[in-house]
Amino acid sequence: MTDKEFSYPIRVYYEDTDAGGVVYYANYLRFFERARTEWLRHLKVEQAQLAASTSCIFVVNEVTVKYYQPARLDDLLNVKSKIYKLGAASINFEQRIEKNGQLLTLAKITVVSVSTINFKPMMMSQDLRALLQTCTSEKF
Amino acid sequence: MTDKEFSYPIRVYYEDTDAGGVVYYANYLRFFERARTEWLRHLKVEQAQLAASTSCIFVVNEVTVKYYQPARLDDLLNVKSKIYKLGAASINFEQRIEKNGQLLTLAKITVVSVSTINFKPMMMSQDLRALLQTCTSEKF
Amino acid sequence: MTDKEFSYPIRVYYEDTDAGGVVYYANYLRFFERARTEWLRHLKVEQAQLAASTSCIFVVNEVTVKYYQPARLDDLLNVKSKIYKLGAASINFEQRIEKNGQLLTLAKITVVSVSTINFKPMMMSQDLRALLQTCTSEKF
Amino acid sequence: MTDKEFSYPIRVYYEDTDAGGVVYYANYLRFFERARTEWLRHLKVEQAQLAASTSCIFVVNEVTVKYYQPARLDDLLNVKSKIYKLGAASINFEQRIEKNGQLLTLAKITVVSVSTINFKPMMMSQDLRALLQTCTSEKF
Repeated sequence: MTDKEFSYPIRVYYEDTDAGGVVYYANYLRFFERARTEWLRHLKVEQAQLAASTSCIFVVNEVTVKYYQPARLDDLLNVKSKIYKLGAASINFEQRIEKNGQLLTLAKITVVSVSTINFKPMMMSQDLRALLQTCTSEKF
Repeated sequence: MTDKEFSYPIRVYYEDTDAGGVVYYANYLRFFERARTEWLRHLKVEQAQLAASTSCIFVVNEVTVKYYQPARLDDLLNVKSKIYKLGAASINFEQRIEKNGQLLTLAKITVVSVSTINFKPMMMSQDLRALLQTCTSEKF
Repeated sequence: MTDKEFSYPIRVYYEDTDAGGVVYYANYLRFFERARTEWLRHLKVEQAQLAASTSCIFVVNEVTVKYYQPARLDDLLNVKSKIYKLGAASINFEQRIEKNGQLLTLAKITVVSVSTINFKPMMMSQDLRALLQTCTSEKF
Repeated sequence: MTDKEFSYPIRVYYEDTDAGGVVYYANYLRFFERARTEWLRHLKVEQAQLAASTSCIFVVNEVTVKYYQPARLDDLLNVKSKIYKLGAASINFEQRIEKNGQLLTLAKITVVSVSTINFKPMMMSQDLRALLQTCTSEKF
């Protein structure tokens, strides 16, 4: 795990699965968000504090997910996250879910910083953006 | 369906089930809440409006659920709700989930009206309580 | 609602929302699936029966979602679904979530029919494909 | 953490919360199950393997939950689990969710071992029962 990529382990529980015997397709988005949140926390950024202090929260603007192989009950997954583009009010993530090094799910997720008051885009603080810049992959 | 009992149909989707092939045990609580909410809506009470106009929301204080038979994918369930006790700041519900008249799940759920500001109990408005009184089963 | 487009109403409950006050981003995928399932049911196709009789289930292969406006507690949403491409073992849906005619969320979702045994693609039955062909939009 | 009590940390994410700003009441049941599952895993019991090798799964039979204080976004919770009664085909758990040593939620949960084929109660294996006996609190 370099500064440019964040790895986060996730265990699959019954709550994550469905009657098909695999993880329900919407629940991978939960896993992706946990990984993004833990990356921020690893950088000492807590979203509840951020909302309280700057009236700014991150919301997802666009998601593309490709499902290659299903995850199953008790699987130990690894979510690998990269930032490949950083804007004034947006972050573009690539996130991969792997199991034993095999790719299960691949996502491109665009997150936008918005005001908690009107949900309109607002620029991130200079500090936050500078911090995220250190995590952004130059080439992708 | 009398004034004292509210019936609400719920269909089981993949999202509700788990790898055991049945509805995940926590998800019955979602079904119970949908039924309580639709009962209120049937009485012309919208919770988002209630929160905005009176700073009062309902939160669940205690739940007891007995699981008799599992619900499965595509099942059409019927949630039957009764109020068996009404307090100044609390409502006691009995809720049953049935399939083709057979009892699957039985719950006793205590809901408390609290302030949106500090989450402390606050009395319901006179109007709301009078309305709910008309739905309360005298004997139980 | 023509044969080529299926409309399905969905109400937003507390379970669907998050602490940001809006519907959690993964939960729109639940709404999309409920709408696809109800379309099939409207066509007299039950997925649990389909799995039992043909060992074939539908799994989502790829999803793209654009989030334009958030949905909120108590909102009554309308999910509009179209099939814009039908393959031997795949269906391409466009699905829109609207509120009072305003677009909130737009998705392109590819569903693949797979074997329940090995999760590998398998052709839909002739009957099922012929049925879905009647619902497919010629031009898009 | 002794052999008789199992502590498991859980972080609260957006997915767990609702528009009231707190953890949605059904989601505590997810937390309780994760803790029970991790206790089993700590004892080298994997539920997916158990189901495959013995056709036996654990299902929840009865739940009582008291909600004292709400958990909120970003909270780091501690789930403390005890077994206070062990039967031939049942386990009675007491589970507490704490934050900084303060009790938020208290549950009594009865789990029954059932056959994966007909969902009827079946005795646990001798080995499994002996293992769980070592974790059972004598007095409660």
